[in-house]
Amino acid sequence: MTNPRRFLPILDWGRSYDRSSFSNDMIAAVIVTIMLIPQSLAYAMLAGLPPEAGIYASIAPIVLYAVFGTSRALAVGPVAVVSLLTASAIGHVAEQGTAGYAVAALTLAFLSGGILLLLGVLRLGFLANFLSHPVIAGFITASGILIALSQFKHILGISAYGHTLPEMLWSMIAHLDQINWITMAVGFSAIGFLVWVRGNLKPLLRRIGIGPTLADFLAKGGPVVAVVASTLAVWSFDLEGLGVQIVGAVPQSLPPLTLPSFAPDLVGALLVPALLISVIGFVESVSVAQTLAAKKRQRIDPDQELIGLGAANLGAAFTGGFPVTGGFSRSVVNFDAGAATPAAGIYTAMGLAVAAVSLTPLIYYLPNATLAATIIVAVLSLVDLSILKKTWGYSRADFTAVAATILLTLGLGVEIGVGAGVAISVLLHLYKTSRPHVAEVGLVPGTQHFRNIHRHEVEIDPSLVTLRVDESLYFVNARFLEDLIQSRVATGSAVKNVVLLFSAVNEVDYSALESLEAINARLGDMGVGLHLSEVKGPVMDRLNRSHVIEQLNGEVFLSQFDAWHALKGQS
Amino acid sequence: MTNPRRFLPILDWGRSYDRSSFSNDMIAAVIVTIMLIPQSLAYAMLAGLPPEAGIYASIAPIVLYAVFGTSRALAVGPVAVVSLLTASAIGHVAEQGTAGYAVAALTLAFLSGGILLLLGVLRLGFLANFLSHPVIAGFITASGILIALSQFKHILGISAYGHTLPEMLWSMIAHLDQINWITMAVGFSAIGFLVWVRGNLKPLLRRIGIGPTLADFLAKGGPVVAVVASTLAVWSFDLEGLGVQIVGAVPQSLPPLTLPSFAPDLVGALLVPALLISVIGFVESVSVAQTLAAKKRQRIDPDQELIGLGAANLGAAFTGGFPVTGGFSRSVVNFDAGAATPAAGIYTAMGLAVAAVSLTPLIYYLPNATLAATIIVAVLSLVDLSILKKTWGYSRADFTAVAATILLTLGLGVEIGVGAGVAISVLLHLYKTSRPHVAEVGLVPGTQHFRNIHRHEVEIDPSLVTLRVDESLYFVNARFLEDLIQSRVATGSAVKNVVLLFSAVNEVDYSALESLEAINARLGDMGVGLHLSEVKGPVMDRLNRSHVIEQLNGEVFLSQFDAWHALKGQS
Repeated sequence: MTNPRRFLPILDWGRSYDRSSFSNDMIAAVIVTIMLIPQSLAYAMLAGLPPEAGIYASIAPIVLYAVFGTSRALAVGPVAVVSLLTASAIGHVAEQGTAGYAVAALTLAFLSGGILLLLGVLRLGFLANFLSHPVIAGFITASGILIALSQFKHILGISAYGHTLPEMLWSMIAHLDQINWITMAVGFSAIGFLVWVRGNLKPLLRRIGIGPTLADFLAKGGPVVAVVASTLAVWSFDLEGLGVQIVGAVPQSLPPLTLPSFAPDLVGALLVPALLISVIGFVESVSVAQTLAAKKRQRIDPDQELIGLGAANLGAAFTGGFPVTGGFSRSVVNFDAGAATPAAGIYTAMGLAVAAVSLTPLIYYLPNATLAATIIVAVLSLVDLSILKKTWGYSRADFTAVAATILLTLGLGVEIGVGAGVAISVLLHLYKTSRPHVAEVGLVPGTQHFRNIHRHEVEIDPSLVTLRVDESLYFVNARFLEDLIQSRVATGSAVKNVVLLFSAVNEVDYSALESLEAINARLGDMGVGLHLSEVKGPVMDRLNRSHVIEQLNGEVFLSQFDAWHALKGQS
Repeated sequence: MTNPRRFLPILDWGRSYDRSSFSNDMIAAVIVTIMLIPQSLAYAMLAGLPPEAGIYASIAPIVLYAVFGTSRALAVGPVAVVSLLTASAIGHVAEQGTAGYAVAALTLAFLSGGILLLLGVLRLGFLANFLSHPVIAGFITASGILIALSQFKHILGISAYGHTLPEMLWSMIAHLDQINWITMAVGFSAIGFLVWVRGNLKPLLRRIGIGPTLADFLAKGGPVVAVVASTLAVWSFDLEGLGVQIVGAVPQSLPPLTLPSFAPDLVGALLVPALLISVIGFVESVSVAQTLAAKKRQRIDPDQELIGLGAANLGAAFTGGFPVTGGFSRSVVNFDAGAATPAAGIYTAMGLAVAAVSLTPLIYYLPNATLAATIIVAVLSLVDLSILKKTWGYSRADFTAVAATILLTLGLGVEIGVGAGVAISVLLHLYKTSRPHVAEVGLVPGTQHFRNIHRHEVEIDPSLVTLRVDESLYFVNARFLEDLIQSRVATGSAVKNVVLLFSAVNEVDYSALESLEAINARLGDMGVGLHLSEVKGPVMDRLNRSHVIEQLNGEVFLSQFDAWHALKGQS
């Protein structure tokens, strides 16, 4: 484990780097760079930052991830959900457009990077598991709706604010008189074009004889076409003079060296949002990375991923960026384009650096409405309400978690939505295990098998009650078993022996141990024997560290069949 | 379930009430009444209330519990831990000795009664299970220390304040100059006498030929002797004039009719403490009631207990009392004295009512130091640090919960102590289940049994990996299994089939379902089959509601032996 290659995966793939890898990586890098330029500008706008911040946030982070990350194809940079979380977190501490806002973004990236690094070094990646699939799915769907709505003001050309659905709707309605019809025309044209490209361009290209791979990449180029066409339109017809908001002057520069703030007030206010961004970004990134790695039988180390993403965010904090993570769409493009190693990311960073110093004057006339359209079309694919139907069919508890997360995220904002979702998932899990399935079993005649007496024709003995406990015993359900046995034995006074069949009991904690002792003492007071059967090795080891086995009013049987033979017919 | 006897247990035992029950109950009532007089005064002092409040809190509540409760022997009234919680809760909203303080106590009893009734009607008694045994044990021990320390000021005759160990110690040290040496002499004499009575009186009485039952009851009368003797001493030697604090004038009256306050600020401030008092009081009371019921093969209905305790607290709120619950020592005395039905409680209430109107002038000269001594000696039996040793030997997680609860209760107060204890228990449980025991198993030669390949000599097949999962699969551990299988299969490229042996899997939630689907898809991409074996009925029913079984890259086998036969040797 002290192998430096574990902490610097670049040492692993770097030594076998060859000409073929180089050419594959270069091709992927060119394609990804072209795709990333409009995407980076758009996510910067979503985060409430100037457009160049999006480009900067794609350069240093991608290089640092290439050095420290374990995925061969993951592309790191600004992504929709993390940009929304950034806007929400910073919106509480600074006014958009001020210097304080940009510094807060750097600070948030710094804190997020620090948290990720710390979790990675302490190997605490499993904490991300507290976000259940229903909570993540509900959160992503609600975020998609909030993101689309937050960008809709740019399509209408109005100003509107808010971090929750009611706030946004109310603010938009209050500003409806500001609508700029030309902006709206540009915005809706861009949305219409992008939706058409997404659904129809690829089949069309295929029909006119273009190969599938090329057709796929041309279809992915839709946003670039929308950017170029709408920029030309604004420039040609002087739409700026008619009130269409444009990107305007963007500095022509490599990423600057920047410093986050360490003011205790600001750090205190951003710590919880930074934790949330870290965990959500990590979960999103790792699931993309694992999906892509599996396709090539490669392996992702989640704890090392935390270090890679932590380094990327620290990079963003010191080079004028904002919080980043591994993005789904850009990683898939990178993978499909044939990226063989993380070097593809390094070449992409170089391409973006060239764009930052040379191409920025060309986007002066780019309308904000076009960027908003690319965001809206991109995030609508995140909105998947079918999760409600799927979980409803599978389990009411999971459905409750999804529905609560969606409603609370939309109604009260992203932080409360995710927090409540996690709390609800945990409580539902505890509730489910608090009333475990306990079956009273009897012998299936002619076999050594025992089955539920209410479902099967089985032999029973009025002096012997055998209960199969289908859950680990721990504090939340310990007393349930006490009550159950007490009520079963108090009502059946012919009972002489109780056997607990422990084949599905994976743990007995101290509370459950005390309950077992109480059950044993109470049954003893009633003159009833308490026996255990089919106790697993690790559970038995632990029980042997206490006095419960030596004080047991009965025996421990290796198999339930042995218990049946020894105890039946003692009435 | 609509049987009125379920909601009014009095209808059940009342109709078979006879002369023998009456005489048993009367004898028990006389003994309990004598014991309760000093105890009630003392716990009122602990709660920061005037002494009569303790008597009032023992009258109406005991009658209401007799009507609605299910335990035949439980004696309801003020108890040490709940009195401490009351003092801590009210201390934050009112000054001790003011009218607002007494009203806050009534309000707290009212809220607590309302919460208990609500939990009972909604049948939510299982919520009390969130308090694990380690948390309760740690909390009771820490509370005993805090209670003893809070009463020590009365022994020294100084004024001191605080709700945490450091606050109390600091305040006592700051007021050490106020020490009254005569008070100290009275206090330490009382403590010494009570400790001697507790340890030595019963054996002594036995030796001089008194029967065991009578000796036991005489020994329990120690506090009454201390009260009488010290009252006489103060009166005879005019110790009041020498600075010894006495109980003073106590109104000679039946419990008054009182009204709690419904001021929103006060209710808001007391709601969380009331919840805490309800839950802790309920847990303490139910465990006493169950222990006593088991000795006579009787049954306690925990949800009906909530209703009984709720009614008792509402009774306290409207008759000048404060929060109450079923007490351990008084219930055991009641049981041992032969109480046959809850009518014993009603007679005890009558005895206390007589005491309230006739005996109160006699306690004018009772020194506070004697009451403090009875509390200190009583609660020292609650302090049981051996729980630290027991849990250390059994499980580090349980030890951590105990130690954290003790330290946080002592250091930061009762509310934070219990809250943190519950949170820590839940997190430790989630942590333990987040990394479940998963064993790779092989066939024990000549049998149909499968055992861990690292512990036993078993047959294995390089093309077939069988993993036995010893835990329910849910969101906290879903991704663990994904990572585990990915790493096992990525490193063993000869693997053609993976079998998951599900005999100990009691649940698969939606997150785990998605993980199974992801595992299935990834193994599919690698050309590896995924199979399940020995899936339980309820788990299989649920999996069949999703598409995972039809999309499975393999089969579901009824037994692991079938899976082995079908899949071995496919390299």
